[in-house]
Amino acid sequence: MSVRVGVVGVGVMGADHARTIARVVSGGELVAVADFDSSVAAAVAAEMDARVCADGAALIADEDVDAVVIATRDDTHTDLVLAALAAGKPVMCEKPLAPTAEDCRRVISAQGALAAPVDLVTVGFMRRFDPSYVTLRDRVLSGDLGAPLMAHCVSRTVATSPGGDSASSVTNSAIHELDIVPWLLNSPIVEVSWQRGRSSVNSGTRQDPQLYLLRTASDVLVTVELFLNARYGYDTRCEVVMETGTSALTLPTHVVTDAERRRAVDYPADWILRYRDAYRIELQEWVDSLVEKRPSTLATAHDGLRAARVADALVESMHSAGGWVAV
Amino acid sequence: MSVRVGVVGVGVMGADHARTIARVVSGGELVAVADFDSSVAAAVAAEMDARVCADGAALIADEDVDAVVIATRDDTHTDLVLAALAAGKPVMCEKPLAPTAEDCRRVISAQGALAAPVDLVTVGFMRRFDPSYVTLRDRVLSGDLGAPLMAHCVSRTVATSPGGDSASSVTNSAIHELDIVPWLLNSPIVEVSWQRGRSSVNSGTRQDPQLYLLRTASDVLVTVELFLNARYGYDTRCEVVMETGTSALTLPTHVVTDAERRRAVDYPADWILRYRDAYRIELQEWVDSLVEKRPSTLATAHDGLRAARVADALVESMHSAGGWVAV
Amino acid sequence: MSVRVGVVGVGVMGADHARTIARVVSGGELVAVADFDSSVAAAVAAEMDARVCADGAALIADEDVDAVVIATRDDTHTDLVLAALAAGKPVMCEKPLAPTAEDCRRVISAQGALAAPVDLVTVGFMRRFDPSYVTLRDRVLSGDLGAPLMAHCVSRTVATSPGGDSASSVTNSAIHELDIVPWLLNSPIVEVSWQRGRSSVNSGTRQDPQLYLLRTASDVLVTVELFLNARYGYDTRCEVVMETGTSALTLPTHVVTDAERRRAVDYPADWILRYRDAYRIELQEWVDSLVEKRPSTLATAHDGLRAARVADALVESMHSAGGWVAV
Amino acid sequence: MSVRVGVVGVGVMGADHARTIARVVSGGELVAVADFDSSVAAAVAAEMDARVCADGAALIADEDVDAVVIATRDDTHTDLVLAALAAGKPVMCEKPLAPTAEDCRRVISAQGALAAPVDLVTVGFMRRFDPSYVTLRDRVLSGDLGAPLMAHCVSRTVATSPGGDSASSVTNSAIHELDIVPWLLNSPIVEVSWQRGRSSVNSGTRQDPQLYLLRTASDVLVTVELFLNARYGYDTRCEVVMETGTSALTLPTHVVTDAERRRAVDYPADWILRYRDAYRIELQEWVDSLVEKRPSTLATAHDGLRAARVADALVESMHSAGGWVAV
Repeated sequence: MSVRVGVVGVGVMGADHARTIARVVSGGELVAVADFDSSVAAAVAAEMDARVCADGAALIADEDVDAVVIATRDDTHTDLVLAALAAGKPVMCEKPLAPTAEDCRRVISAQGALAAPVDLVTVGFMRRFDPSYVTLRDRVLSGDLGAPLMAHCVSRTVATSPGGDSASSVTNSAIHELDIVPWLLNSPIVEVSWQRGRSSVNSGTRQDPQLYLLRTASDVLVTVELFLNARYGYDTRCEVVMETGTSALTLPTHVVTDAERRRAVDYPADWILRYRDAYRIELQEWVDSLVEKRPSTLATAHDGLRAARVADALVESMHSAGGWVAV
Repeated sequence: MSVRVGVVGVGVMGADHARTIARVVSGGELVAVADFDSSVAAAVAAEMDARVCADGAALIADEDVDAVVIATRDDTHTDLVLAALAAGKPVMCEKPLAPTAEDCRRVISAQGALAAPVDLVTVGFMRRFDPSYVTLRDRVLSGDLGAPLMAHCVSRTVATSPGGDSASSVTNSAIHELDIVPWLLNSPIVEVSWQRGRSSVNSGTRQDPQLYLLRTASDVLVTVELFLNARYGYDTRCEVVMETGTSALTLPTHVVTDAERRRAVDYPADWILRYRDAYRIELQEWVDSLVEKRPSTLATAHDGLRAARVADALVESMHSAGGWVAV
Repeated sequence: MSVRVGVVGVGVMGADHARTIARVVSGGELVAVADFDSSVAAAVAAEMDARVCADGAALIADEDVDAVVIATRDDTHTDLVLAALAAGKPVMCEKPLAPTAEDCRRVISAQGALAAPVDLVTVGFMRRFDPSYVTLRDRVLSGDLGAPLMAHCVSRTVATSPGGDSASSVTNSAIHELDIVPWLLNSPIVEVSWQRGRSSVNSGTRQDPQLYLLRTASDVLVTVELFLNARYGYDTRCEVVMETGTSALTLPTHVVTDAERRRAVDYPADWILRYRDAYRIELQEWVDSLVEKRPSTLATAHDGLRAARVADALVESMHSAGGWVAV
Repeated sequence: MSVRVGVVGVGVMGADHARTIARVVSGGELVAVADFDSSVAAAVAAEMDARVCADGAALIADEDVDAVVIATRDDTHTDLVLAALAAGKPVMCEKPLAPTAEDCRRVISAQGALAAPVDLVTVGFMRRFDPSYVTLRDRVLSGDLGAPLMAHCVSRTVATSPGGDSASSVTNSAIHELDIVPWLLNSPIVEVSWQRGRSSVNSGTRQDPQLYLLRTASDVLVTVELFLNARYGYDTRCEVVMETGTSALTLPTHVVTDAERRRAVDYPADWILRYRDAYRIELQEWVDSLVEKRPSTLATAHDGLRAARVADALVESMHSAGGWVAV
């Protein structure tokens, strides 16, 4: 039995999801795509032998579509997720689940009203499926090195897209950190502080890099550097400091090259290259859970809400000179 | 459309292939397994909801089986591959294709007699699909650092299985190197020399480690250390020395851990952990090629023969005090 | 011409300085030692064929002593440095120059009153001579990667000595960071914030680890983790994030060892092993400057004061719930 | 008491030794230099406030010179060492001790005739003092990982100097490997084999790279790659494979830099940068041994002879198609 999937929004991220479902995920079948740009939709559909639906609503309503991936613009997520819920169809929504905590709550409320045996909404926090993060979490939760005391996270990308401001750095980009940190440390974030650094000349009016301090319910202090115009490469780092040792993500590499007086490994250029395995494993787990009619291990709508609330608290701290703000 | 696969031999390797096809490969379906140990076959079949066939011959003949994976003992490969050819079914045979070059030639001859539009036999030299080897080959073939001049390879495993002698180290274990080196350097091996080292106390009567010198048609000299009782971990290394620089495989890692005065990354314990991605990608490519009725990029029966001939030359060198032997 | 050096305080640090001067530094000669524990003084003197002086005052007054190294308990530094100044003798005082900023000012004032052509007081901030820090600073100041925007520092040691509290972590241990950060970034620290983390079970009543935020006059935001009971090893890290790339200290290593499923390099157990080269180069530069009657590149009394003032601000922040405090 | 040293030959290597003795070595004093190019001698002497002697013979005869460093052209070593012996003065001769084994024997014979309590001749095999090699040897000799079974060595430099042929690669460059391997494994080399690889387009008529196989009396098989025109950097590698694990030299680094999609560390450009510490420690040990009138741990004339004999055997193998040649 295979799950027939439709993808709404087939820009860079959605087209990648479509390809992964069509070609790599066992038990998944790509049947339909939709995009506000019909030529993009047509191209992706042609490449993968899928149908084009007129829009997200039509795709969600399509009777050949068993499950929906949403990879559209952030501000359209809520309505599309609500439409999927109304149609009783499982949905994997790219992060953020919704632009505001309030919208997240509407989704949760609508899902709760269905009283379905298994929640329909999942959120695409793919880092939870990255083999390095999974290994790091296993090591932390094993307790072999004692309790976590502190953690240091870094998220750097090559350049910002046009648009966006200092707040959107938090809600759109740092949101991955805000989900992964409590998952990694097994404790929710209870207070946050936003700190200004010297801003890059490449950052326009946006504050970039930014530094966040997060404190978990278990009292672990976490530093997060977010730098969207880091230029040198796409780079995610995380070190957890425990009682008797530390453990950290490594940079995934394939070869090391000696040339021109240097010994070097390559950085990926973007998140799709860095997290290719994570996306594949996440979508496989989603499809498997649908086939087996069981809850998946993907992030839930509640996780999406929790991350949104932390993001809101960080933006509030940003507007109040960096003081600690409770989540 | 999905490809219905049967797996003959579901020991450690075959069971892993069965799981990969059943759960991970898109477009592949595991329908049947067979094993000389019927309780093993029953357990794997139950785990993956497949049927048990009485033996390899029955599985190959089964009309619900579109394609066959062979992962039985080396000395049974030839007959099973010939049976699959007789049944006109595609086959992915674990390395070695056959225990002798003569047997490889029989397979090639039988395949040729079919005059099928696409060759039916492929050989499981999975390193060709390992992302690190693929990246290394791309770098070598790009010519950016000039022509390859020398290469250094190391294959180490934790411990030998019972049985086996110095010659079987070559034909059964080093065979991976004998396939990958010419693939990597894009030039066949034309002469070889086998060199004795001091043997490990853990190696019984088998010479271990062994050192091989290989020379390609392009005149590249290659050193290969094979050490089956290396104890510390499963480790594959390869460095290609070019005109203006070198490039080498890195050890795939997920986390680095600081504890007890050491900064450490983990070695995999065996080949299945080290080459998990390679096996998955290889089987996906095999299934894709069957769906699309096109030649795959897997190793062919000719590649299997070429590796066998190099192995034979190495064994001949071993029996003649390490002199160079033409392939 | 050689410089005849006396060392006051020959515990672990002072004995190491004594050995370095006696055996490794060109142009330096160890002539006398003193220690409040006379048996320790006698042992070190015997080992290096030096004389024992009754106490620091006697050593400073000794006419065979041209220059003085002070490596006694922190609270004795001020008086000994003042005594050396009174005797008109150059002094290399282990950090901190004095336990308080006020005492640092007394030293500076006494030194100024001498109106000597070259300042007599230097402070043992040896990291300035560590080849890794020197290389990192060169890279930062070259501007090749643009201006520094942020920096992340980590100072971890195996275990705390008996005694000490949360404030002494700042004034005694973190003081190295407070000196090196402005040296590295070429800009003074102008405000600081002290942040509490979850404290290690091995830390007694002391808050450990601690996190500091520092801001330089050039607006660079710096995070500093200090963890004295990190257990796993002695570890100094520093990464400087610049406009188009980053540069960081590497862990100095000699060999990498593969054993027991791990690939590992060793951590030094303490600061003497980690900074052996730095201490040697620092003392060589000090002796060279004395021979050549020129200012050295060692930290000055003013540097010692600056670090003390930053430490005081951090302690103030600690006592006021982590708010930012101007230096 | 200090040792007054004269340096004969102050090209790149000799000038570096002169500076090290003058400025860095404790107890050493540079008093005189000589060079066949008098302007070079004058410049080095002026820089370090030493005298110029007319030639090596004059320097050796100079009554203010206690000990002699020889860093002249290889073919002048024997006569200068013999002159130093005739003058009864200790000598540190750069490798090779002499261009031929026969000349080495003349030196040993002349030294023996003196019947001095401590041998006067030492040879500049500085790798014995490199902290990485020392740590590696300690690890090997500790036996913690069992007996050594195999070793892999690589010596690469950026480019060859003008002149030189395939044999000179062995006698002049590979000689370092031929000394260090038996020192590291604590067993002499008893047979060797020279192997041709594909030669670099940058190597002229010289075979480059070359591969050597060495076998020790303890039956350890060693591979050595020598590549003088490797272009990318100066690089020495060595891995020792033991019963239960391996240990290898690491590349000494100070910083790691992220830029332009790469994470990179720098290679040194030449041997003086790579072995700066080794040269310093070697010369310090030499001077210490002279002060203390004891044998040093530097390589002896016998070590120089042993390395020369292995080199001769390799050249013989080169002229006989790579067969094994007994030393």
